[in-house]
Amino acid sequence: MTTLEDYLEKNADRMDKMINRYFGDVYGDLFRASAHLLLAGGKRLRPAVVSLAADAVTKGSSYDLLPAALALELTHNFTLIHDDIMDGDVTRRGVPTVHTVWGEPTAILAGDVLYAKAFEFICISDAGNLEKVRAVRMLARTCTEICEGQSMDIAFEARRDVSEAEYLEMVAKKTGVLYGAAAAIGGVLAGANPIQADALYQFGVNSGVAFQIQDDLIDLYASSEKSGKDRASDIREGKQTLIAITAREKGLDLAPYQRELTGAEIDDLIARLEDAGVIDEVRATAIERAVVAKEALSVLPDSEEKRLLGEIADFFVNRGN
Amino acid sequence: MTTLEDYLEKNADRMDKMINRYFGDVYGDLFRASAHLLLAGGKRLRPAVVSLAADAVTKGSSYDLLPAALALELTHNFTLIHDDIMDGDVTRRGVPTVHTVWGEPTAILAGDVLYAKAFEFICISDAGNLEKVRAVRMLARTCTEICEGQSMDIAFEARRDVSEAEYLEMVAKKTGVLYGAAAAIGGVLAGANPIQADALYQFGVNSGVAFQIQDDLIDLYASSEKSGKDRASDIREGKQTLIAITAREKGLDLAPYQRELTGAEIDDLIARLEDAGVIDEVRATAIERAVVAKEALSVLPDSEEKRLLGEIADFFVNRGN
Repeated sequence: MTTLEDYLEKNADRMDKMINRYFGDVYGDLFRASAHLLLAGGKRLRPAVVSLAADAVTKGSSYDLLPAALALELTHNFTLIHDDIMDGDVTRRGVPTVHTVWGEPTAILAGDVLYAKAFEFICISDAGNLEKVRAVRMLARTCTEICEGQSMDIAFEARRDVSEAEYLEMVAKKTGVLYGAAAAIGGVLAGANPIQADALYQFGVNSGVAFQIQDDLIDLYASSEKSGKDRASDIREGKQTLIAITAREKGLDLAPYQRELTGAEIDDLIARLEDAGVIDEVRATAIERAVVAKEALSVLPDSEEKRLLGEIADFFVNRGN
Repeated sequence: MTTLEDYLEKNADRMDKMINRYFGDVYGDLFRASAHLLLAGGKRLRPAVVSLAADAVTKGSSYDLLPAALALELTHNFTLIHDDIMDGDVTRRGVPTVHTVWGEPTAILAGDVLYAKAFEFICISDAGNLEKVRAVRMLARTCTEICEGQSMDIAFEARRDVSEAEYLEMVAKKTGVLYGAAAAIGGVLAGANPIQADALYQFGVNSGVAFQIQDDLIDLYASSEKSGKDRASDIREGKQTLIAITAREKGLDLAPYQRELTGAEIDDLIARLEDAGVIDEVRATAIERAVVAKEALSVLPDSEEKRLLGEIADFFVNRGN
């Protein structure tokens, strides 16, 4: 029986090889900029979801869908490059961001190149043409929604009254739908029927939302070895995360913490959030989304891959705990 | 017999209606920003090439390829929005550029939304699935090349030794390939065989190069009613156009003109360029490309649409004369 850890490692190796083949030896600033974050590593979780979803539909028979799996990683990387420009971030995955190295114009174009390549790689997968057209449409709609999510995220920065519903919509669009597309595209290209494809999409979206909420928790707790400079960055920047929104609803305003914080101040804040029940409530929302994600898989026949998809949803809410 | 002028007007009306239907009443900053330049008008030349190419292949039988025609206009508009950010341009089509109104982050996202919509609209055209997959691949490869062209254009700004061959490669990528894709995608979706599709692509690329060279000439001459502030902007900005490159090859350095110029100085410069044979040579290159474009069409059966495609190539090099 394959463990999720083994599967993810094998998947990452496979993706790294493909990425090296297509992007490892490119010529010119534009293509080196496109390859920069791809070559900086990453868990390749979205490609893993594509492949597992495909194999869950076909009960483990093999399809050459690796190009489509790579397409989802390329889409993710295109959004990272453009988001980093908008957010003014200077490092990612331990390396300088693309615009920091090559400047904004080349970074905009580098993202645009990966965007195009994503659609190209869907088309060169080994699948039927009707299925490819469906996958292209799904990826296109997903990209529009990701843009909406990022646009909401930017708009939220100027507000202190974001509701939980608004936050969850933003996160579903910014992070959820790409996992939804990963699962559904894997399924569709492998011949999923509409009920299966929809179930896989729901699995992905809910897993992705759970992933993002857990990410917010990880940002707060981070590693105890880290200084106040690295921990609780969302709170120090006044970001409207589910933690901040839930705290506000419970009468705990985080605005006074929007400044440099010492490690002791962060520890104190965490204790206050825990005492007020904020952390338990946020964690419960993440776990609930993971449960919904796993329940969506019930329409699929039991298989090793279905089990691993379920474990991915659990992994998303257990990371960093 | 339809004149090209009538055809283009009818086509623009048709596209304007579609654009209004899909983008005329959108909600939120992101989608309004996406629609901004689309709604500001334009000749809709790329959609015209899609439709004419399709009808030239099927000898005028009707296909519902309007969504694909729109897809090419969306692709063009996405590149305009991103290019305007990179180039810091403040007006286009008589309206403020997208980033000037909504800021750079929303402008990046607005371009990304149109990018996605372009692929979506290819998929909802009335054509076979194999043909749609081919069209998507073609559009994806084209977008990568457009990014390369823009990247070369930016790199050329720092150089004064750009060769004619380098310039023509840049222009082919930045402007030519999208016309190539327009013609080939129209043809492919209408059932063109590979020889016809390739011929249409060559028609489009060469027409597009001719179009851009003529654009450079128009920038120099512009309307005599205009002040020195609007005329010869390429020369005042030191851009490496075919005019500047040809002038340099003939021993006429335009670097001293990289400054504010009076109308009289521009008139004097034009006279010097004409005397040195620069203008004749540049114009000859544009006309040669239009001839090559029209010759490529010889593999297609004679039809009203084939004639109109040929007239488009002529129109591209006669505009503004």
